[in-house]
Amino acid sequence: MFRNNLLSSLLQDAVDELSSLPGIGRKSALRFALHLLKQPAENVERFTGTLQRMRTEIKYCSNCNMISDSGLCPICSSPSRDRSLVCVVESIRDVISIDNTGQYNGLYHVLGGIISPMDGTGPSDIAIDHLVSRVAEGSVQEVFLALSTTMEGETTSFYIFKKLNQFDVRISTIARGVGFGDDLEYTDEVTLGRSIQNRQPFVPLNK
Amino acid sequence: MFRNNLLSSLLQDAVDELSSLPGIGRKSALRFALHLLKQPAENVERFTGTLQRMRTEIKYCSNCNMISDSGLCPICSSPSRDRSLVCVVESIRDVISIDNTGQYNGLYHVLGGIISPMDGTGPSDIAIDHLVSRVAEGSVQEVFLALSTTMEGETTSFYIFKKLNQFDVRISTIARGVGFGDDLEYTDEVTLGRSIQNRQPFVPLNK
Repeated sequence: MFRNNLLSSLLQDAVDELSSLPGIGRKSALRFALHLLKQPAENVERFTGTLQRMRTEIKYCSNCNMISDSGLCPICSSPSRDRSLVCVVESIRDVISIDNTGQYNGLYHVLGGIISPMDGTGPSDIAIDHLVSRVAEGSVQEVFLALSTTMEGETTSFYIFKKLNQFDVRISTIARGVGFGDDLEYTDEVTLGRSIQNRQPFVPLNK
Repeated sequence: MFRNNLLSSLLQDAVDELSSLPGIGRKSALRFALHLLKQPAENVERFTGTLQRMRTEIKYCSNCNMISDSGLCPICSSPSRDRSLVCVVESIRDVISIDNTGQYNGLYHVLGGIISPMDGTGPSDIAIDHLVSRVAEGSVQEVFLALSTTMEGETTSFYIFKKLNQFDVRISTIARGVGFGDDLEYTDEVTLGRSIQNRQPFVPLNK
């Protein structure tokens, strides 16, 4: 696009780096670079310093693998959380999504991936053994599997289910069904079929 | 969105910084931050170092105000460029757009803004005097005004036109008309009216 020696190599290098961000092409990267060029030097210094510090100083919670500033994350160290309930998720982003609903008050367990033979990710590449040892410790009463409803998600859920079967622990998963605002006509048959089997008592939304 | 002490403050600070990029909200910023977290430390160091270096080391061409690694930009120092023709643009991005067409072989003059009373930008805030002195020097034969077709762009073009009127220099502007692929029905009346007045000899596209 503009690899024609037109531009300063300093800018070209910056565009190369910025276009490595997920979903960012060279046009957006150029826009970011020109934006940073217009900022006061101390702002750019703070920008880069903050990113650098995040990468080098961040820690992971020894209990749930969530990112943290210290040894235990704010969720695991909160006294108001239900410590008998553990929600198993693929990534940090899922923790944020679930916690933002305000409907969950237990702890989490971040697997850091999902079993995917296609991508070469096996059970030992993600934090399943860590989860098993958390459950073996005894205080967990329910493991709530909140993985994607994809083939990989279902495989991972099933693998964890088998691994935890030896313990006296309830294993639940997120309810499958037709999403709010979804059109029945365009809902796939498996989802619709399951929502009929698992039909629930009607509760008005604004109750 | 997740300013609820859930997340590491290191990550929150990084999200704050990344969401200052143009067009980037907190969701995308979080995605960028988690992406950077997963990268090897040396990659993040190169990322931040490159941006930092760009901001502190970049120079501006003394002739045309284009960004440059040294005193003169590659365009101004190229022997194959037509030095009698100067294209006046608002920003560095316009230089890239115009040069990418492959239809222009002259030099540029980056104003670094546009006259806009609403934004408080007057003629002295942009590089108009610099342009006048380039023309006064004598070797420029044509000044090609390639500014936006907005009120501000037209005002700036007219201001420059008046300033350069004292010199023996041709002043041209980009052709206005109906864009390729545009539907006549949806073309505004001013554009359509001008394209009729300025109708051109028909030239097949793939000639």
